[in-house]
Amino acid sequence: MKKLLIENVKIITMEGEDIIIPKGYIYIEDNKIVKIKEGVYEGERDGLEVIDGNGCVALPGFINCHTHVPMTLLRGYGEGLPLMRWLNEKIWPFEARLTEEDIYNGALLGIIEMIKSGTTSFIDMYFREDAIAKACKMANIRGFLGSPIIGDMWERQMDETLRLFDEYKEDELVKIFIAPHSPYTCSFETLEKVGEIARNYKLPVHIHIAETKDEVNIIREKYSKTPAEVCKDAGLYDENKVIAAHCVQLNDDDIMMIKDYDFTVVYNPQSNMKLASGAAPIVKMMENGINVALGTDGASSNNNLNMIDEMKSASLLQKLTYSDATALSAYDTLKLATVNAAKAVGMEDKLGKIKEGYLADIILIDFNKPHLTPPTDIYSNIVYSANGSEIKTVIINGKTVLKDYKILFTNEEEAILKANQSFIKVIERLK
Amino acid sequence: MKKLLIENVKIITMEGEDIIIPKGYIYIEDNKIVKIKEGVYEGERDGLEVIDGNGCVALPGFINCHTHVPMTLLRGYGEGLPLMRWLNEKIWPFEARLTEEDIYNGALLGIIEMIKSGTTSFIDMYFREDAIAKACKMANIRGFLGSPIIGDMWERQMDETLRLFDEYKEDELVKIFIAPHSPYTCSFETLEKVGEIARNYKLPVHIHIAETKDEVNIIREKYSKTPAEVCKDAGLYDENKVIAAHCVQLNDDDIMMIKDYDFTVVYNPQSNMKLASGAAPIVKMMENGINVALGTDGASSNNNLNMIDEMKSASLLQKLTYSDATALSAYDTLKLATVNAAKAVGMEDKLGKIKEGYLADIILIDFNKPHLTPPTDIYSNIVYSANGSEIKTVIINGKTVLKDYKILFTNEEEAILKANQSFIKVIERLK
Repeated sequence: MKKLLIENVKIITMEGEDIIIPKGYIYIEDNKIVKIKEGVYEGERDGLEVIDGNGCVALPGFINCHTHVPMTLLRGYGEGLPLMRWLNEKIWPFEARLTEEDIYNGALLGIIEMIKSGTTSFIDMYFREDAIAKACKMANIRGFLGSPIIGDMWERQMDETLRLFDEYKEDELVKIFIAPHSPYTCSFETLEKVGEIARNYKLPVHIHIAETKDEVNIIREKYSKTPAEVCKDAGLYDENKVIAAHCVQLNDDDIMMIKDYDFTVVYNPQSNMKLASGAAPIVKMMENGINVALGTDGASSNNNLNMIDEMKSASLLQKLTYSDATALSAYDTLKLATVNAAKAVGMEDKLGKIKEGYLADIILIDFNKPHLTPPTDIYSNIVYSANGSEIKTVIINGKTVLKDYKILFTNEEEAILKANQSFIKVIERLK
Repeated sequence: MKKLLIENVKIITMEGEDIIIPKGYIYIEDNKIVKIKEGVYEGERDGLEVIDGNGCVALPGFINCHTHVPMTLLRGYGEGLPLMRWLNEKIWPFEARLTEEDIYNGALLGIIEMIKSGTTSFIDMYFREDAIAKACKMANIRGFLGSPIIGDMWERQMDETLRLFDEYKEDELVKIFIAPHSPYTCSFETLEKVGEIARNYKLPVHIHIAETKDEVNIIREKYSKTPAEVCKDAGLYDENKVIAAHCVQLNDDDIMMIKDYDFTVVYNPQSNMKLASGAAPIVKMMENGINVALGTDGASSNNNLNMIDEMKSASLLQKLTYSDATALSAYDTLKLATVNAAKAVGMEDKLGKIKEGYLADIILIDFNKPHLTPPTDIYSNIVYSANGSEIKTVIINGKTVLKDYKILFTNEEEAILKANQSFIKVIERLK
């Protein structure tokens, strides 16, 4: 049995805003947190891996609830074009030329980036999730993966989802979700079918809903309904766990309707600002008891996968939107990336807190930095002052994957090189 | 004569979006850039300090055009309170108990934070600028410093400004500005007097204008004018160089009026979002030819002094405000922090570009990072993907102040310790 001790560490438990352990230890056996306590560890030290957390704050690892991780390869590609030209002239031709190897290289690059900025789980939607699953296993990160179901190819894509579901159903780290792309790219019949399969196999549904005004208009023209209504009427929400990215353009009726379902809204503030999609009404959703989590979206519309960066934008954008400097506090923002995110993936009894019996997904933030001084308000310093470069150590499922800022599972330089090579090869294929 | 060579480096000159030197060198003598060239340096190497810029991008150092640097001590202090309670119950009582030593410690902490995130100059407004000037000299950073002129104490504060002006008038790094706090905290007569003194001594005027709707309402009640009009009518703009922070609530007439003056608007997007003040109409100002620069504001309303973090918010907020994904491009955003900022301080022929004959204020950004891979669009990667932790080397006025991520001019750990001690002492004085 593997035993791991993190000692001399300040612990943010996420069990409540006031429940901080000023200095204590976390004792881990295999992949589980066995003991958390203030003070000094006095147990047996034989065969124990010890991490000195002095000067650090321990926090549950972040769960990035919406991304397309191989799109790291498209970072900065086609910048400055309006949305439709960007997709038609740049993104889609590029994506059509990606091989499985490229997707693996892009995914591994993104996973390294995520781990280095404190993310220990992510919900993904991309082609060739098998390659992404391999990258997850290699890095020992939790991946909730869904192949997009889109347009006419939906039957083949649904089969692919079920094949992957079968392959990974016993896996500790990789879980398969079902991922209808959106109500404007799936037919009503596809949405109905997805809802049914999700119910039969108990697959959480990961979808884009109401990202832009254009989408709302397209759907209104076709159905005389809102995007959220179309999905409801197709039975997508019935008995299913729904993780809906964006929801920027939900109206008040949509909000009142979705709150009765097991529905998580994934807020993607930086992508929504960068693509000029708008500001999601997060405060109103939360007031109505809707579970809200946080995601970065893909690197090509962000342009990074940094959840600390995302948390700052998340909070500031709500303060601006509601003209209220007290809206979406630092602590509540941290919840979007931890507790609420764990609920989104149906693991609220295992993830998102530092708690005895929970899985050991823990990050250590090095507070010995000029920009985190003084440590007056620890939540505020993490959400507003930090930039994601302070993550010193990352433990996922009990295993240390980043230690003293260094990735342990692969050669980072080589991963960067391979991603660069993949990018160059795709550009050559485009000629 | 000191000679410094940066070689094997990609150079962003900021002379035009396409004017990038893919691999070359920058040769510096004393405090000036003498030669910039593609390829390999073939001159004499005796007595030459050499920096290998391999894998790095050289860029003019950032100019933070609006801050209150000692407010690092108030980082996260009084978080989550509405504005007036925050000021009355927290900020003002704390500030009243700061000693000169505390201000020095807070300023040095902020300067270290700024240098580590690529800032080489800053425009400041705070009490005891003499202590801040000492910190600037110690760190070898350019400071454009103004003691706030506010309320009834204006005569004494004006004298203090002139005393500092006299002390630093020959200084290479520290320049004294005159800093009337705002049209709502200075009387009309004070604004008139400041305008006159600024003209007589050729002192640039650093002021807050139209930060909030409350300010606009207060001023309308008192004068039946806008804040920008009041300053104009007091003669503050006549023949003066004006650096106006915020300008969130400028109306269209204000914009048409200020464009005829030597007027720089300093955009502070993160502070304006965090305090729920609003989004400044930057795109409209720029369309009207107004010079716009960028600032972080103080660390207590941001909560860091990181210009890379600020650039991302700057661009994203304009895209959102104007519902246009192409608004305020990455390159134009970089200009706010360099070229336009140099114009703000009247040094457009000496700062803000990497150019022969210009002052050697240069930063090296380490691109060998997962989150800056691939380096497809270098401007986009700096503005949207970077987080400020990639600054490897900083040169100010020809002197290396940060090398291989390490501050050279002081002991960083000790500076952190002293700032923490100052914070604790102020809290004790509050009891």
